[in-house]
Amino acid sequence: MSFRACKRFSSPLLQASKLFLSSSSPAPQLHVRPLVDSLIPQTQGLKKSFGFPRPYMSTSLASLAKEEEVASKDIETLRAVEDQHGGVIINMEESMDSSLFASLLEASISQWRDQGKKGVWMKLAREHSNLVDSAVKAGFRFHHAEPDYLMLVNWIPDTPDTLPANASHRVAVGAFVMNANREVLVVQESNGRFSGTGFWKLPTGGVDEGEDICTAAVREVKEETGIETEFVEVIAFKERHKAFFGKSELFFVCMLQPRSFKIERQVSEIEAAQWMAIEDYMAQPFVRDNELFDFLTKIGLSKFGGKYTGFSTILSSTSSSKKSYLYFNNKDASPMIASKF
Amino acid sequence: MSFRACKRFSSPLLQASKLFLSSSSPAPQLHVRPLVDSLIPQTQGLKKSFGFPRPYMSTSLASLAKEEEVASKDIETLRAVEDQHGGVIINMEESMDSSLFASLLEASISQWRDQGKKGVWMKLAREHSNLVDSAVKAGFRFHHAEPDYLMLVNWIPDTPDTLPANASHRVAVGAFVMNANREVLVVQESNGRFSGTGFWKLPTGGVDEGEDICTAAVREVKEETGIETEFVEVIAFKERHKAFFGKSELFFVCMLQPRSFKIERQVSEIEAAQWMAIEDYMAQPFVRDNELFDFLTKIGLSKFGGKYTGFSTILSSTSSSKKSYLYFNNKDASPMIASKF
Repeated sequence: MSFRACKRFSSPLLQASKLFLSSSSPAPQLHVRPLVDSLIPQTQGLKKSFGFPRPYMSTSLASLAKEEEVASKDIETLRAVEDQHGGVIINMEESMDSSLFASLLEASISQWRDQGKKGVWMKLAREHSNLVDSAVKAGFRFHHAEPDYLMLVNWIPDTPDTLPANASHRVAVGAFVMNANREVLVVQESNGRFSGTGFWKLPTGGVDEGEDICTAAVREVKEETGIETEFVEVIAFKERHKAFFGKSELFFVCMLQPRSFKIERQVSEIEAAQWMAIEDYMAQPFVRDNELFDFLTKIGLSKFGGKYTGFSTILSSTSSSKKSYLYFNNKDASPMIASKF
Repeated sequence: MSFRACKRFSSPLLQASKLFLSSSSPAPQLHVRPLVDSLIPQTQGLKKSFGFPRPYMSTSLASLAKEEEVASKDIETLRAVEDQHGGVIINMEESMDSSLFASLLEASISQWRDQGKKGVWMKLAREHSNLVDSAVKAGFRFHHAEPDYLMLVNWIPDTPDTLPANASHRVAVGAFVMNANREVLVVQESNGRFSGTGFWKLPTGGVDEGEDICTAAVREVKEETGIETEFVEVIAFKERHKAFFGKSELFFVCMLQPRSFKIERQVSEIEAAQWMAIEDYMAQPFVRDNELFDFLTKIGLSKFGGKYTGFSTILSSTSSSKKSYLYFNNKDASPMIASKF
């Protein structure tokens, strides 16, 4: 993740922001976690559980576990490790005959019930998909899936299932990039709603898992147009629901400062790209006749003219090695920061 | 979705916002879609595909389809419908023997290949999990899963797979609620990182799929404390990565205006709730010693004192029947809106 890509290009807050950088100050590392934990929702009804259950904060099941195998008495059961919430984790690493698996799973579940275990997580790599049916028949439901694995869960006790839900949102960005000649960076896409319409639109794209909004906007502009930019501000954002298999979307409109000007379009996805006089851009029917589109453009123009303040970033540390961005109204917050630092 | 819950409690923009309400103006309905489509990323490399492929914008596979069955010549193949992107959709509704399924699937895929079909989507309800293994052996990968179904995909041609990714983010909210006595609404949670520490924290919670940020903040406060509130502004938001099975999180700090004052805590999750003098809240070590936490509290105070502007909302229409919120700096944008409306 690039800090440079996201820093404000004239940054009275840079000094302050340094205080949030773990590299220059250990304090945030030590202290931000309580904040983060207090900020995130309670998803497990268990004492000592964290906001999002800490064990599930890692993609590695090994790292989730206490690395103690569940005592299996003398019965033959599946290899499992305890999680930190009174549950167990099965990570099927070797292939197994599905009927053998079914009997081991049955024995395991009855043992875990006796032991008062709660949530049972089962990660099945795609190559072990022969075991999915047995797991479902044993009472497991699907939790989530990624291309190469399926995660199933089974809440054993009679108490309400408090296991955390799957990811709920997708995030996308749009980039408002204007040069000193008041020309806005626009593209015509090879595909999509506007393909073949002649409409010049702002560069847009999806924010990847693990990617920052400010970084994604800079990346998309670079990919689609070859233009180097620096993130300035999120000037507005928008919610949209039932957008994708019932998931929700958040769309962030970002103001970026161009750092290069020679356009090299992305041949695979972009039919054409250009710097377009803002008046010509706004005169397009899709912009002119669309109150929301027109309004967002006016916000961008106002920001360009220094008459609008959106949310810019400070980099902070969440936990041991993680950095994350805080987005807020830097201009209004400056006095507070000045008084503090 | 409640507009009231999200409107600003003194709203010079209410008049303007009405123009965004489809109920009072058909224009946005007619025109906002081009904006939205232009804003969302291109995920399919197909002519005439939308931002997020339109077919996948519905949870109902039936509604995705052109409702024409794929011509199946004389070979016996699986029942499938074409999508609008040169692909097909299989929605297994009846149970089937897995070996019969495997042979039908093989015949179907070879036929679709001959027909130049691209992405094949297969929705398997949990009760048909006996078919998962055959699908995987036929080259399908997992796309996503919800408790009751698994979605698999298979990109038939030799071109790069341009199928859209799974949901990437979770979204959470924290609520800064202060009364006229400069007391902030705080809770002690039964579970979680701060359980038993005596730390008084802001109410927080997860934003549900299909729920608005502004609505979620109001709901969480009502659930945890019984206090009725109105959404005022998002005063800051924060990114966090690798937080949950590798997914990312966005956390929105919301300023809410209390509309009731008698606290009734949520017995199941909240140990205690109270109105706490802001000075006492800030004197807690977790706040005092945590630069980021302290900073967010100062932003909240500054907002309370009218010296900070975050992002408030306007309701707009995205497509036929959908409403969605635009979040932006209403104060700075007011002149633009005044000039327009």
